[in-house]
Amino acid sequence: MSTWFAKKRSRSDVPRLKPRGQQQSIHKVDLGDLTPKLLPYLGQAAYLQLEAFEALSRAMASAPTLEAKAGLAVSAGLALTKHAGLTAEILRHHGDPITVMQPFAPAIRRFSEVISGGDWYELLLSSYLTDGLLNDFFIQLAPGLPGETGKRVVAILQQDSGTTPITSAIESGIRADSRLASSLALWGRRLVGDTLLVARSALALSGNVASDELRIEPAFTELIAAHTRRMDALGLSA
Amino acid sequence: MSTWFAKKRSRSDVPRLKPRGQQQSIHKVDLGDLTPKLLPYLGQAAYLQLEAFEALSRAMASAPTLEAKAGLAVSAGLALTKHAGLTAEILRHHGDPITVMQPFAPAIRRFSEVISGGDWYELLLSSYLTDGLLNDFFIQLAPGLPGETGKRVVAILQQDSGTTPITSAIESGIRADSRLASSLALWGRRLVGDTLLVARSALALSGNVASDELRIEPAFTELIAAHTRRMDALGLSA
Repeated sequence: MSTWFAKKRSRSDVPRLKPRGQQQSIHKVDLGDLTPKLLPYLGQAAYLQLEAFEALSRAMASAPTLEAKAGLAVSAGLALTKHAGLTAEILRHHGDPITVMQPFAPAIRRFSEVISGGDWYELLLSSYLTDGLLNDFFIQLAPGLPGETGKRVVAILQQDSGTTPITSAIESGIRADSRLASSLALWGRRLVGDTLLVARSALALSGNVASDELRIEPAFTELIAAHTRRMDALGLSA
Repeated sequence: MSTWFAKKRSRSDVPRLKPRGQQQSIHKVDLGDLTPKLLPYLGQAAYLQLEAFEALSRAMASAPTLEAKAGLAVSAGLALTKHAGLTAEILRHHGDPITVMQPFAPAIRRFSEVISGGDWYELLLSSYLTDGLLNDFFIQLAPGLPGETGKRVVAILQQDSGTTPITSAIESGIRADSRLASSLALWGRRLVGDTLLVARSALALSGNVASDELRIEPAFTELIAAHTRRMDALGLSA
């Protein structure tokens, strides 16, 4: 793993990003200074939700029980609701959703394949963890969006993600076979690197590596901490 | 094909079903007299929408362009909205959605496999035609539901099905390769028998075959006519 997401909490010289204007930071750290232009931001976020929807609907199709199937359908629908909200925001800013999403499709498509996993539980865990991390990440970037758009985007991204059917299915899988916990713990650790690379690819970096790293680091440390809490809550030691 | 969906428009002795009480028939013919009990009706209709959602999300996952993918995601979401509306209706009538849907899952699952088709276009055509026919069918049955439920269910089923992305994709496929039209015409004809069997399985029949056929026939003739119109509109001679 590269150093940009290594944990270095003890450092005291990490610059604190200043809130810009009226914007409120939802998280302790925001990445507002590194926010890309509005339409690329929306395009990438919208395409990620489309892929999240696709992954959840695939998980739904192979669900072993009708209860899991119906629950995952709801989760998939909520990803689609976020996608629709972001698409509406693209239209509001006079963008064409397809044109705006298109540049991000190949890389995110490859990412989806990498994280799709070898079985149903890995697919579920991927959906849950990557959606959680990338949601947090796009919320960190939102204060850098112009005008009221940031607030509206945060409202979209903070909508219910319907994670209960996903975590319930994982938990009951682990109860039925305790070996699942160790393989999923490994899988969850593998995911984080690829997911942070997707996040990093969204940033409008200055090109000055040292300065960029200083800005990214506290935010990514927070993303990893939240990822670890999600793993812990599932009983997966990260 | 059995005689119950053969076209016999020339017969003049077909009994007209009387409207019951205040209920309004949406179609010229309704099947209100053969409506099953409320919860089984809702369970079967809700499970069909879940399968429709699954088929559309599968079609979305294998869409050749981002435009088709994003369009089919919307169509899938609209099937899910109908599913959610019907599930809410089950809860309103103190049913457990899973328990109420479960009895219909195996047969509808098999039906979905039969109609899933050999390629993307067959899958799309199946989604479009079977959803159209079964939607009409459940609307025909709705006048037989108690109280105001029938009206609410009709309102759910008459919501937009988002068919434009589906028919656009089929039409552009046919424009690109005219041979597709003849293979899809064949596929559309094959579908109708299996789809009408699903519909028939939902009916509360008396067991008196002759009398049942007399009641079913005009409604099924109408379903087939609407199916034929959908085929015609796509340039597929039925």
